[in-house]
Amino acid sequence: MPTTIAPAELRADIDNFYAWHMQLLDAGRVEEWADAFTPDGVFDAQGHPEPVRGRDEIRSASRTVADKLAEAGIVRRHWLSMSHIVPEGATVRVRSYALVFQSGKEKGTVLHASTTCEDVLVPDGGSWLIRERVVRVDGTA
Amino acid sequence: MPTTIAPAELRADIDNFYAWHMQLLDAGRVEEWADAFTPDGVFDAQGHPEPVRGRDEIRSASRTVADKLAEAGIVRRHWLSMSHIVPEGATVRVRSYALVFQSGKEKGTVLHASTTCEDVLVPDGGSWLIRERVVRVDGTA
Amino acid sequence: MPTTIAPAELRADIDNFYAWHMQLLDAGRVEEWADAFTPDGVFDAQGHPEPVRGRDEIRSASRTVADKLAEAGIVRRHWLSMSHIVPEGATVRVRSYALVFQSGKEKGTVLHASTTCEDVLVPDGGSWLIRERVVRVDGTA
Repeated sequence: MPTTIAPAELRADIDNFYAWHMQLLDAGRVEEWADAFTPDGVFDAQGHPEPVRGRDEIRSASRTVADKLAEAGIVRRHWLSMSHIVPEGATVRVRSYALVFQSGKEKGTVLHASTTCEDVLVPDGGSWLIRERVVRVDGTA
Repeated sequence: MPTTIAPAELRADIDNFYAWHMQLLDAGRVEEWADAFTPDGVFDAQGHPEPVRGRDEIRSASRTVADKLAEAGIVRRHWLSMSHIVPEGATVRVRSYALVFQSGKEKGTVLHASTTCEDVLVPDGGSWLIRERVVRVDGTA
Repeated sequence: MPTTIAPAELRADIDNFYAWHMQLLDAGRVEEWADAFTPDGVFDAQGHPEPVRGRDEIRSASRTVADKLAEAGIVRRHWLSMSHIVPEGATVRVRSYALVFQSGKEKGTVLHASTTCEDVLVPDGGSWLIRERVVRVDGTA
Protein backbone atom coordinates (compact mmCIF):
# COMPACT_ATOMS: atom_id res chain seq x y z
CA MET A 1 0.00 0.00 0.00
CA PRO A 2 2.22 2.85 -1.18
CA THR A 3 1.21 5.97 0.67
CA THR A 4 2.79 9.01 2.22
CA ILE A 5 2.85 8.49 5.95
CA ALA A 6 2.51 11.71 7.88
CA PRO A 7 4.85 11.79 10.87
CA ALA A 8 3.41 11.78 14.38
CA GLU A 9 3.78 15.51 14.97
CA LEU A 10 1.92 16.36 11.76
CA ARG A 11 -0.85 13.87 12.49
CA ALA A 12 -1.39 15.33 15.96
CA ASP A 13 -1.31 18.88 14.61
CA ILE A 14 -3.93 18.11 11.99
CA ASP A 15 -6.21 16.29 14.44
CA ASN A 16 -5.90 19.19 16.90
CA PHE A 17 -6.62 21.70 14.17
CA TYR A 18 -9.85 20.08 12.97
CA ALA A 19 -11.19 19.40 16.47
CA TRP A 20 -10.99 23.08 17.40
CA HIS A 21 -12.02 24.32 13.95
CA MET A 22 -15.23 22.27 13.86
CA GLN A 23 -16.13 22.98 17.47
CA LEU A 24 -15.94 26.72 16.72
CA LEU A 25 -18.34 26.29 13.80
CA ASP A 26 -20.84 24.22 15.77
CA ALA A 27 -20.72 26.68 18.68
CA GLY A 28 -21.80 29.45 16.32
CA ARG A 29 -18.42 31.17 16.60
CA VAL A 30 -18.24 31.43 12.84
CA GLU A 31 -16.04 34.53 12.82
CA GLU A 32 -13.25 32.64 14.58
CA TRP A 33 -13.97 29.60 12.43
CA ALA A 34 -13.61 31.72 9.28
CA ASP A 35 -10.28 33.05 10.56
CA ALA A 36 -8.86 29.63 9.72
CA PHE A 37 -9.13 30.48 6.01
CA THR A 38 -6.49 32.52 4.19
CA PRO A 39 -7.66 36.03 3.15
CA ASP A 40 -8.04 34.68 -0.40
CA GLY A 41 -9.30 31.26 0.69
CA VAL A 42 -11.86 29.38 -1.39
CA PHE A 43 -14.71 27.30 0.06
CA ASP A 44 -16.29 25.10 -2.56
CA ALA A 45 -19.27 23.47 -0.87
CA GLN A 46 -21.70 21.56 -2.99
CA GLY A 47 -24.73 23.41 -1.67
CA HIS A 48 -23.59 26.68 -3.18
CA PRO A 49 -23.95 27.31 -6.93
CA GLU A 50 -20.47 28.90 -6.95
CA PRO A 51 -17.45 28.50 -4.68
CA VAL A 52 -17.30 31.22 -2.01
CA ARG A 53 -14.13 33.26 -2.51
CA GLY A 54 -12.29 35.16 0.22
CA ARG A 55 -12.35 35.00 4.01
CA ASP A 56 -14.85 37.85 4.33
CA GLU A 57 -17.33 36.19 2.01
CA ILE A 58 -16.87 32.85 3.77
CA ARG A 59 -17.47 34.56 7.10
CA SER A 60 -20.70 36.23 6.07
CA ALA A 61 -22.04 33.13 4.30
CA SER A 62 -21.47 31.01 7.39
CA ARG A 63 -22.99 33.70 9.63
CA THR A 64 -26.20 33.45 7.58
CA VAL A 65 -26.34 29.68 8.04
CA ALA A 66 -25.52 29.89 11.76
CA ASP A 67 -28.27 32.43 12.36
CA LYS A 68 -30.86 30.28 10.59
CA LEU A 69 -29.90 27.22 12.61
CA ALA A 70 -29.97 29.16 15.88
CA GLU A 71 -33.40 30.55 15.06
CA ALA A 72 -34.68 27.03 14.32
CA GLY A 73 -33.18 25.71 17.58
CA ILE A 74 -30.96 23.29 15.72
CA VAL A 75 -27.50 22.22 16.86
CA ARG A 76 -25.10 20.76 14.33
CA ARG A 77 -22.08 18.59 15.04
CA HIS A 78 -19.46 18.23 12.35
CA TRP A 79 -17.47 15.03 12.74
CA LEU A 80 -14.35 15.02 10.61
CA SER A 81 -12.11 11.97 10.60
CA MET A 82 -10.30 9.33 8.51
CA SER A 83 -7.95 12.09 7.36
CA HIS A 84 -5.44 11.09 4.71
CA ILE A 85 -2.59 13.58 5.09
CA VAL A 86 -0.22 14.27 2.21
CA PRO A 87 2.55 16.85 2.70
CA GLU A 88 3.41 18.74 -0.50
CA GLY A 89 6.37 20.97 0.30
CA ALA A 90 5.28 23.46 2.94
CA THR A 91 1.58 22.87 2.30
CA VAL A 92 -0.45 19.86 3.30
CA ARG A 93 -3.28 18.23 1.43
CA VAL A 94 -5.84 16.51 3.68
CA ARG A 95 -8.69 14.36 2.42
CA SER A 96 -11.17 13.51 5.16
CA TYR A 97 -14.63 12.15 5.69
CA ALA A 98 -17.10 14.43 7.44
CA LEU A 99 -20.50 13.64 8.90
CA VAL A 100 -23.02 16.26 9.94
CA PHE A 101 -25.42 15.40 12.77
CA GLN A 102 -28.34 17.64 13.54
CA SER A 103 -30.22 17.86 16.84
CA GLY A 104 -33.38 19.69 17.77
CA LYS A 105 -36.26 19.35 20.19
CA GLU A 106 -38.69 18.05 17.60
CA LYS A 107 -36.78 15.53 15.54
CA GLY A 108 -34.16 14.49 18.10
CA THR A 109 -30.79 13.75 16.53
CA VAL A 110 -30.51 12.77 12.88
CA LEU A 111 -27.68 12.17 10.47
CA HIS A 112 -27.87 15.13 8.11
CA ALA A 113 -25.17 14.33 5.55
CA SER A 114 -22.10 12.24 4.75
CA THR A 115 -19.43 14.18 2.90
CA THR A 116 -15.83 14.23 1.81
CA CYS A 117 -13.70 17.26 2.65
CA GLU A 118 -10.51 18.05 0.74
CA ASP A 119 -8.40 20.83 2.20
CA VAL A 120 -5.19 22.50 1.13
CA LEU A 121 -3.56 23.80 4.31
CA VAL A 122 -0.72 26.28 4.52
CA PRO A 123 1.39 26.74 7.66
CA ASP A 124 0.64 29.80 9.82
CA GLY A 125 3.00 30.01 12.76
CA GLY A 126 2.09 27.12 15.04
CA SER A 127 -1.20 26.40 13.28
CA TRP A 128 -2.69 26.16 9.78
CA LEU A 129 -4.75 28.19 7.37
CA ILE A 130 -7.10 26.75 4.76
CA ARG A 131 -6.33 27.98 1.25
CA GLU A 132 -8.90 25.77 -0.43
CA ARG A 133 -11.71 23.53 0.79
CA VAL A 134 -13.80 21.27 -1.45
CA VAL A 135 -16.78 19.52 0.15
CA ARG A 136 -18.82 16.94 -1.72
CA VAL A 137 -22.03 15.40 -0.40
CA ASP A 138 -22.37 11.63 -0.81
CA GLY A 139 -25.36 10.30 -2.70
CA THR A 140 -25.99 13.38 -4.79
CA ALA A 141 -23.62 12.87 -7.74
CA MET B 1 -7.21 30.81 15.13
CA PRO B 2 -5.54 31.18 18.53
CA THR B 3 -5.66 27.84 20.28
CA THR B 4 -3.52 25.74 22.52
CA ILE B 5 -2.00 23.00 20.42
CA ALA B 6 -1.47 19.82 22.35
CA PRO B 7 1.88 18.21 21.48
CA ALA B 8 1.94 14.88 19.68
CA GLU B 9 2.61 12.77 22.78
CA LEU B 10 -0.34 14.27 24.63
CA ARG B 11 -2.66 13.87 21.67
CA ALA B 12 -1.75 10.19 21.31
CA ASP B 13 -2.10 9.63 25.06
CA ILE B 14 -5.58 11.14 25.10
CA ASP B 15 -6.74 9.21 22.05
CA ASN B 16 -5.39 5.97 23.54
CA PHE B 17 -7.06 6.72 26.86
CA TYR B 18 -10.55 7.27 25.43
CA ALA B 19 -10.41 4.30 23.08
CA TRP B 20 -9.75 1.87 25.91
CA HIS B 21 -12.02 3.69 28.37
CA MET B 22 -15.06 3.57 26.09
CA GLN B 23 -14.43 0.00 24.96
CA LEU B 24 -14.45 -1.10 28.62
CA LEU B 25 -17.82 0.58 29.15
CA ASP B 26 -19.38 -0.92 26.04
CA ALA B 27 -18.05 -4.38 26.92
CA GLY B 28 -19.90 -4.20 30.24
CA ARG B 29 -16.64 -4.02 32.18
CA VAL B 30 -17.97 -1.05 34.11
CA GLU B 31 -15.86 -1.69 37.22
CA GLU B 32 -12.66 -1.21 35.21
CA TRP B 33 -14.28 1.69 33.38
CA ALA B 34 -15.13 3.35 36.70
CA ASP B 35 -11.51 2.90 37.87
CA ALA B 36 -10.66 5.71 35.46
CA PHE B 37 -12.35 8.19 37.80
CA THR B 38 -10.59 9.63 40.85
CA PRO B 39 -11.96 8.39 44.20
CA ASP B 40 -13.77 11.73 44.55
CA GLY B 41 -14.58 12.01 40.84
CA VAL B 42 -17.81 13.65 39.69
CA PHE B 43 -19.92 12.45 36.75
CA ASP B 44 -22.48 15.02 35.72
CA ALA B 45 -24.58 13.35 33.02
CA GLN B 46 -27.71 15.08 31.90
CA GLY B 47 -29.91 12.03 32.45
CA HIS B 48 -29.37 12.14 36.20
CA PRO B 49 -31.17 14.71 38.35
CA GLU B 50 -27.94 15.24 40.33
CA PRO B 51 -24.28 14.70 39.47
CA VAL B 52 -23.00 11.32 40.68
CA ARG B 53 -20.22 11.90 43.24
CA GLY B 54 -17.42 9.45 44.01
CA ARG B 55 -15.96 6.48 42.15
CA ASP B 56 -18.02 3.96 44.11
CA GLU B 57 -21.28 5.72 43.28
CA ILE B 58 -20.26 6.05 39.63
CA ARG B 59 -19.43 2.36 39.55
CA SER B 60 -22.76 1.21 40.94
CA ALA B 61 -24.78 3.62 38.78
CA SER B 62 -23.09 2.34 35.64
CA ARG B 63 -23.51 -1.27 36.75
CA THR B 64 -27.27 -0.69 36.93
CA VAL B 65 -27.34 0.69 33.37
CA ALA B 66 -25.10 -2.09 32.04
CA ASP B 67 -27.31 -4.79 33.56
CA LYS B 68 -30.45 -3.29 32.04
CA LEU B 69 -28.86 -3.11 28.60
CA ALA B 70 -27.56 -6.68 28.84
CA GLU B 71 -31.00 -7.93 29.85
CA ALA B 72 -32.58 -6.13 26.91
CA GLY B 73 -29.95 -7.58 24.51
CA ILE B 74 -28.72 -4.12 23.58
CA VAL B 75 -25.12 -3.28 22.69
CA ARG B 76 -23.98 0.33 22.93
CA ARG B 77 -20.99 1.88 21.21
CA HIS B 78 -19.66 5.15 22.52
CA TRP B 79 -17.77 7.09 19.84
CA LEU B 80 -15.75 9.92 21.30
CA SER B 81 -13.80 12.20 18.99
CA MET B 82 -13.06 15.78 17.89
CA SER B 83 -11.26 16.24 21.22
CA HIS B 84 -10.05 19.76 21.92
CA ILE B 85 -7.21 19.31 24.41
CA VAL B 86 -6.15 22.16 26.68
CA PRO B 87 -3.34 21.55 29.19
CA GLU B 88 -3.75 23.54 32.43
CA GLY B 89 -0.67 22.91 34.51
CA ALA B 90 -0.55 19.21 35.37
CA THR B 91 -4.22 18.67 34.52
CA VAL B 92 -5.78 18.54 31.09
CA ARG B 93 -9.17 19.80 30.03
CA VAL B 94 -10.66 17.88 27.09
CA ARG B 95 -13.84 18.88 25.28
CA SER B 96 -15.05 16.17 22.92
CA TYR B 97 -18.06 15.14 20.91
CA ALA B 98 -19.55 11.76 21.73
CA LEU B 99 -22.13 9.73 19.83
CA VAL B 100 -23.94 6.73 21.26
CA PHE B 101 -25.05 4.00 18.86
CA GLN B 102 -27.36 1.26 20.01
CA SER B 103 -27.77 -2.18 18.42
CA GLY B 104 -30.25 -4.94 19.09
CA LYS B 105 -31.93 -7.75 17.25
CA GLU B 106 -35.25 -5.96 16.87
CA LYS B 107 -34.36 -2.42 15.88
CA GLY B 108 -30.98 -3.01 14.25
CA THR B 109 -28.54 -0.17 14.86
CA VAL B 110 -29.75 3.31 15.65
CA LEU B 111 -28.12 6.56 16.67
CA HIS B 112 -29.15 6.98 20.29
CA ALA B 113 -27.70 10.39 21.16
CA SER B 114 -25.28 13.14 20.19
CA THR B 115 -23.51 14.67 23.16
CA THR B 116 -20.63 16.84 24.27
CA CYS B 117 -18.25 15.50 26.91
CA GLU B 118 -16.06 17.81 28.98
CA ASP B 119 -13.46 16.07 31.13
CA VAL B 120 -10.89 17.31 33.60
CA LEU B 121 -8.11 14.73 33.59
CA VAL B 122 -5.35 14.42 36.15
CA PRO B 123 -2.17 12.46 35.51
CA ASP B 124 -1.89 9.01 37.11
CA GLY B 125 1.44 7.37 36.39
CA GLY B 126 1.41 6.57 32.67
CA SER B 127 -2.33 7.17 32.27
CA TRP B 128 -5.08 9.55 33.36
CA LEU B 129 -7.86 9.77 35.91
CA ILE B 130 -11.10 11.71 35.41
CA ARG B 131 -11.74 14.22 38.17
CA GLU B 132 -14.83 15.68 36.56
CA ARG B 133 -16.99 14.76 33.58
CA VAL B 134 -19.86 16.86 32.26
CA VAL B 135 -22.01 15.31 29.52
CA ARG B 136 -24.69 17.31 27.74
CA VAL B 137 -27.17 15.81 25.26
CA ASP B 138 -27.74 17.80 22.07
CA GLY B 139 -31.28 18.85 21.25
CA THR B 140 -32.60 18.85 24.80
CA ALA B 141 -31.60 22.32 26.04
CA MET C 1 -6.96 1.44 34.32
CA PRO C 2 -4.07 -0.87 33.46
CA THR C 3 -3.57 -0.80 29.72
CA THR C 4 -0.77 -0.80 27.21
CA ILE C 5 -0.32 2.73 25.99
CA ALA C 6 0.84 2.92 22.40
CA PRO C 7 3.51 5.59 21.94
CA ALA C 8 2.75 8.63 19.82
CA GLU C 9 4.55 7.38 16.70
CA LEU C 10 2.63 4.11 16.70
CA ARG C 11 -0.69 5.84 17.30
CA ALA C 12 -0.09 8.20 14.36
CA ASP C 13 1.05 5.34 12.16
CA ILE C 14 -2.07 3.32 12.89
CA ASP C 15 -4.41 6.26 12.34
CA ASN C 16 -2.67 7.07 9.05
CA PHE C 17 -2.88 3.46 7.95
CA TYR C 18 -6.62 3.07 8.50
CA ALA C 19 -7.52 6.43 6.96
CA TRP C 20 -5.85 5.52 3.68
CA HIS C 21 -6.91 1.88 3.80
CA MET C 22 -10.61 2.66 4.22
CA GLN C 23 -10.59 5.49 1.67
CA LEU C 24 -9.18 3.06 -0.91
CA LEU C 25 -12.01 0.61 -0.22
CA ASP C 26 -14.73 3.25 -0.42
CA ALA C 27 -13.26 4.66 -3.65
CA GLY C 28 -13.62 1.24 -5.26
CA ARG C 29 -9.85 0.79 -5.42
CA VAL C 30 -10.21 -2.65 -3.88
CA GLU C 31 -7.08 -4.07 -5.49
CA GLU C 32 -4.91 -1.53 -3.64
CA TRP C 33 -7.02 -2.02 -0.53
CA ALA C 34 -6.44 -5.78 -0.70
CA ASP C 35 -2.68 -5.20 -1.02
CA ALA C 36 -2.77 -4.27 2.67
CA PHE C 37 -3.32 -7.94 3.52
CA THR C 38 -0.44 -10.43 3.75
CA PRO C 39 -0.43 -13.03 0.92
CA ASP C 40 -1.85 -15.56 3.41
CA GLY C 41 -4.07 -13.00 5.18
CA VAL C 42 -7.43 -14.02 6.60
CA PHE C 43 -10.57 -11.86 6.49
CA ASP C 44 -13.24 -13.17 8.80
CA ALA C 45 -16.29 -10.99 8.18
CA GLN C 46 -19.57 -12.04 9.70
CA GLY C 47 -21.46 -11.85 6.42
CA HIS C 48 -19.49 -14.72 4.92
CA PRO C 49 -20.17 -18.30 5.95
CA GLU C 50 -16.42 -18.96 6.06
CA PRO C 51 -13.41 -16.68 6.56
CA VAL C 52 -11.86 -15.60 3.25
CA ARG C 53 -8.29 -16.91 3.08
CA GLY C 54 -5.47 -15.37 1.06
CA ARG C 55 -4.96 -11.94 -0.50
CA ASP C 56 -6.15 -13.08 -3.92
CA GLU C 57 -9.42 -14.40 -2.55
CA ILE C 58 -9.93 -11.27 -0.46
CA ARG C 59 -9.30 -9.15 -3.54
CA SER C 60 -11.84 -10.94 -5.71
CA ALA C 61 -14.47 -11.08 -2.97
CA SER C 62 -14.21 -7.34 -2.41
CA ARG C 63 -14.27 -6.68 -6.17
CA THR C 64 -17.63 -8.46 -6.34
CA VAL C 65 -19.06 -6.29 -3.56
CA ALA C 66 -17.61 -3.09 -5.06
CA ASP C 67 -19.12 -3.84 -8.46
CA LYS C 68 -22.57 -4.47 -6.99
CA LEU C 69 -22.47 -1.21 -5.03
CA ALA C 70 -21.30 0.76 -8.07
CA GLU C 71 -24.07 -0.73 -10.18
CA ALA C 72 -26.64 0.23 -7.53
CA GLY C 73 -25.23 3.77 -7.33
CA ILE C 74 -24.35 3.34 -3.67
CA VAL C 75 -21.38 4.96 -1.95
CA ARG C 76 -20.13 3.49 1.31
CA ARG C 77 -18.03 5.24 3.92
CA HIS C 78 -16.19 3.11 6.44
CA TRP C 79 -15.48 5.03 9.64
CA LEU C 80 -12.96 3.25 11.84
CA SER C 81 -12.03 4.75 15.18
CA MET C 82 -11.66 4.23 18.94
CA SER C 83 -8.69 1.96 18.18
CA HIS C 84 -7.19 0.18 21.16
CA ILE C 85 -3.62 -0.59 20.10
CA VAL C 86 -1.65 -3.37 21.78
CA PRO C 87 1.90 -4.09 20.59
CA GLU C 88 2.86 -7.77 20.83
CA GLY C 89 6.52 -8.02 19.87
CA ALA C 90 6.86 -6.92 16.25
CA THR C 91 3.14 -7.32 15.54
CA VAL C 92 0.35 -5.06 16.71
CA ARG C 93 -3.16 -6.03 17.72
CA VAL C 94 -5.76 -3.31 17.09
CA ARG C 95 -9.36 -3.48 18.26
CA SER C 96 -11.49 -0.74 16.73
CA TYR C 97 -15.07 0.26 16.22
CA ALA C 98 -16.22 0.66 12.63
CA LEU C 99 -19.39 2.22 11.26
CA VAL C 100 -20.58 1.82 7.70
CA PHE C 101 -22.63 4.64 6.18
CA GLN C 102 -24.37 4.17 2.87
CA SER C 103 -25.47 6.92 0.48
CA GLY C 104 -27.57 6.77 -2.66
CA LYS C 105 -29.92 8.97 -4.60
CA GLU C 106 -33.06 7.24 -3.39
CA LYS C 107 -32.54 6.68 0.32
CA GLY C 108 -30.08 9.49 1.08
CA THR C 109 -27.53 8.56 3.70
CA VAL C 110 -28.24 5.82 6.22
CA LEU C 111 -26.24 4.07 8.90
CA HIS C 112 -25.73 0.60 7.48
CA ALA C 113 -23.95 -1.20 10.34
CA SER C 114 -22.04 -0.83 13.60
CA THR C 115 -19.19 -3.31 13.91
CA THR C 116 -16.04 -4.18 15.80
CA CYS C 117 -12.86 -4.81 13.84
CA GLU C 118 -9.95 -6.76 15.32
CA ASP C 119 -6.78 -6.73 13.25
CA VAL C 120 -3.40 -8.37 13.66
CA LEU C 121 -0.92 -6.12 11.87
CA VAL C 122 2.63 -7.03 10.90
CA PRO C 123 5.23 -4.41 9.98
CA ASP C 124 6.01 -3.97 6.28
CA GLY C 125 8.74 -1.40 5.73
CA GLY C 126 7.22 1.94 6.67
CA SER C 127 3.65 0.62 6.73
CA TRP C 128 1.62 -2.39 7.89
CA LEU C 129 0.09 -5.53 6.51
CA ILE C 130 -3.01 -7.24 7.89
CA ARG C 131 -2.44 -10.88 8.77
CA GLU C 132 -5.87 -11.39 10.27
CA ARG C 133 -9.06 -9.34 10.41
CA VAL C 134 -12.17 -10.31 12.38
CA VAL C 135 -15.28 -8.17 11.88
CA ARG C 136 -18.39 -8.65 14.01
CA VAL C 137 -21.67 -6.86 13.37
CA ASP C 138 -23.42 -5.44 16.45
CA GLY C 139 -26.95 -6.56 17.15
CA THR C 140 -26.75 -9.89 15.35
CA ALA C 141 -25.26 -12.16 18.02
